Amino acid sequence: MQVVSVKKALAGGVEEGTKVEVRGWVRTRRDSKAGISFVNVSDGSTFDPIQVVAPNALPNYEKEILHLTAGCSVICRGTLVKSQGKGQAFEVQADEVQVLGFVDDPDTYPIQPKQHTLEFLRDVAHLRVRTNTFSAVTRVRHRAAMAVHRFFDEEGFFWVNTPIITASDAEGAGQMFRVSTLDAVNPPRTPEGKIDWHKDFFGKEAYLTVSGQLNVEAYALAMSKVYTFGPTFRAENSNTTRHLAEFWMIEPEIAFADLNEDANLAERFLKYVFKAVLDDCAPDLKFFEERVQKGVTERMEKFINSSFERIDYTDAIEILKKAKKKFEYAPEWGKDLQTEHERYLTEEHVGRPVVVMNYPEAIKSFYMRINDDGRTVAAMDVLAPGIGEIIGGSQREERLDVLDQRIQKFGLKPESYQWYRDLRRYGSVPHAGFGLGFERLIVYICGLQNIRDAIPYPRVPGSAAF
Amino acid sequence: MQVVSVKKALAGGVEEGTKVEVRGWVRTRRDSKAGISFVNVSDGSTFDPIQVVAPNALPNYEKEILHLTAGCSVICRGTLVKSQGKGQAFEVQADEVQVLGFVDDPDTYPIQPKQHTLEFLRDVAHLRVRTNTFSAVTRVRHRAAMAVHRFFDEEGFFWVNTPIITASDAEGAGQMFRVSTLDAVNPPRTPEGKIDWHKDFFGKEAYLTVSGQLNVEAYALAMSKVYTFGPTFRAENSNTTRHLAEFWMIEPEIAFADLNEDANLAERFLKYVFKAVLDDCAPDLKFFEERVQKGVTERMEKFINSSFERIDYTDAIEILKKAKKKFEYAPEWGKDLQTEHERYLTEEHVGRPVVVMNYPEAIKSFYMRINDDGRTVAAMDVLAPGIGEIIGGSQREERLDVLDQRIQKFGLKPESYQWYRDLRRYGSVPHAGFGLGFERLIVYICGLQNIRDAIPYPRVPGSAAF
Repeated sequence: MQVVSVKKALAGGVEEGTKVEVRGWVRTRRDSKAGISFVNVSDGSTFDPIQVVAPNALPNYEKEILHLTAGCSVICRGTLVKSQGKGQAFEVQADEVQVLGFVDDPDTYPIQPKQHTLEFLRDVAHLRVRTNTFSAVTRVRHRAAMAVHRFFDEEGFFWVNTPIITASDAEGAGQMFRVSTLDAVNPPRTPEGKIDWHKDFFGKEAYLTVSGQLNVEAYALAMSKVYTFGPTFRAENSNTTRHLAEFWMIEPEIAFADLNEDANLAERFLKYVFKAVLDDCAPDLKFFEERVQKGVTERMEKFINSSFERIDYTDAIEILKKAKKKFEYAPEWGKDLQTEHERYLTEEHVGRPVVVMNYPEAIKSFYMRINDDGRTVAAMDVLAPGIGEIIGGSQREERLDVLDQRIQKFGLKPESYQWYRDLRRYGSVPHAGFGLGFERLIVYICGLQNIRDAIPYPRVPGSAAF
Repeated sequence: MQVVSVKKALAGGVEEGTKVEVRGWVRTRRDSKAGISFVNVSDGSTFDPIQVVAPNALPNYEKEILHLTAGCSVICRGTLVKSQGKGQAFEVQADEVQVLGFVDDPDTYPIQPKQHTLEFLRDVAHLRVRTNTFSAVTRVRHRAAMAVHRFFDEEGFFWVNTPIITASDAEGAGQMFRVSTLDAVNPPRTPEGKIDWHKDFFGKEAYLTVSGQLNVEAYALAMSKVYTFGPTFRAENSNTTRHLAEFWMIEPEIAFADLNEDANLAERFLKYVFKAVLDDCAPDLKFFEERVQKGVTERMEKFINSSFERIDYTDAIEILKKAKKKFEYAPEWGKDLQTEHERYLTEEHVGRPVVVMNYPEAIKSFYMRINDDGRTVAAMDVLAPGIGEIIGGSQREERLDVLDQRIQKFGLKPESYQWYRDLRRYGSVPHAGFGLGFERLIVYICGLQNIRDAIPYPRVPGSAAF
């Protein structure tokens, strides 16, 4: 008896007529008047369940099979045959349907065989992966993550796991979560009444990282091509549909590279990931297309067949000012682009992905490289039709004297950046990188509206698993 | 001009006589009396640097090339030729050596071209990747991580990013780090003087995860085969050479599986990862072999060519009691195995990897499945020659009534585990999984003595980058 996944069975991965064993959970059961039950069984390996045909000759037909409801676990043994029915190529003619676990009180089982609101499902985080939507998100997320690693590996990058607990705030920006083992009620205090952080676990104040970029730069300046792909944290905006307090970020960093090479890398990267998902997740994308957002597949197909347009920020402002469109926020040189501006540029003005380059220095981070004009930095945002900014990156300031001016200008403590300055003192080279939120990519791929639906466990107050 | 990595150039990946551009950092410089300098350049792509031959006819020879020291960054353009010298197959006959960055005060540059103690290098975490040892660790770590993902992907698993910030303690064990945004000096308090956690970011007390297992079980019971690979945290033992406060853990979980299948998975997994490293990191392993620990390569080769022995815990205790060896801790049924016991079993008694199975229930976690004997649980440890335990796993208790007894017996709050109980109420199936610390695997592969040398940034008090 060959144990096969539903994916393999449905794809005809074993010969017709083979005896197979399929294991999974019941999605639906339908009984014919002729005394045959059609049990759809899903194991997560692919979008569609497989139809198991159970005749009333089976010894447990009356006692068990006729009581199967959504969520019951079964092991089905039988013959893989071509299906007469519509919608599937193969089915299993069962010799045996072994029930491993029934559903306790089927009427109150949260995952009924009907459509649930995404809001409701966020409250049953531990069970929502049993729905079509979230098993599809899980497969797409996996395929996209594998593509991320494969892309970088094939291009000669090394994955670097930068610290999650850190003593430094990467950009002097972003609210951080404090990490501590001190007694919160009665923490040790200094004579002045302050907290005595020397007594904390690491001997100093510690936080959850907001970005691995600064740390990974040190690796780029020895290994040439590196990337991070790990969790990052922001203690802000926890209740929007676009922000997460905890999200996975991807941050490649390349040495001997300028902003143009950075943009080239971003273009190759996004196309590679989209292509992997298109190639491998067709049934899942079909579902998103039909039930979540029309056009998600076509959007990615167009994306990978487009060359990215590059526009200077200064030119972008001019384009926006001349646009016939009325914006909520008036475009103005020196201000950051709003999502409405970004979407106009990529969707209406160009109709393809756009890289906006060279932003005003005052609205960007201290580590970005000052351009020769003295008023812009070598920063870029990649804008995608349907979402706006999807990647942000920059060439880093590799000149020690200029970096020092920037640290001063931004009011940062130079002593916190001695190690970062070292990278410019010892064999400095031009280098660049970018960052993107992995969940934002998943939202884009699947056409989701709420970023909480792109993570395995939405940390919703009251959610059963938090 | 073709830009090539040192790895590609040394491997003859471009035809002899091709004009190439190599970018990297100087390791050493040697000048011949005949007016030729031999500059060894490394770019991190492979263990060995490439030799760049720079004749004094180059315009910047006197002014720059003769001043190159370890750590300087260069772009070298020239012809790739077969090397006359010993130790490398190819070298670059330079037409141009462009110096991008010198080293500020070479005499005090921490990474001198000599051997440093690992202890010293932990204090210059941001620069230590410029050494042979840590660039090799970075490559091995990358290759092993890629193999982890590839193994699971090829076997049909899905990567699940379980929450890092969590409200629950996975096992009722392990000191946790608290995560909070409350003001530490004057936190909001309840009328009773306790901390008012309702006012904290998530509306309740939150911690860094010690394991994703419980969360990923919910995914296994819908997707069949899943794994985590992410950071986990323990606020204990921070100053040993074997424990980290922050480390990356790998936790596969399989549905419709018992402890034997779990052990099979562990065996396939370890062999796959070791084979990938052996196939791809030969120059790095050669270095570890010669400079860090003799026998690391042979140890892995023997490992992948061995079948794992399986021994019942109860039998293992008998074997240990009969052993002629004198142990510091006397083996006794009901007590956990010490490293000395584990190493005796795998190194001396069997001479191969060993899976010890079915431990006394009292020394294991609440979620492990009670065996029919009522006094052992379906837990396993995989023991490897040279290190002892490398993987710990178990079949999970899938019977709700038995789980409830365990929760009570361990003094856990049933209300915290309602969602976990749901997994047994709705289509429960036998399932199993294991966990291993990724850094422990790296320590084993490379033959390191201190686990701090297996992570990109050792979080050493006083370290420049923390």
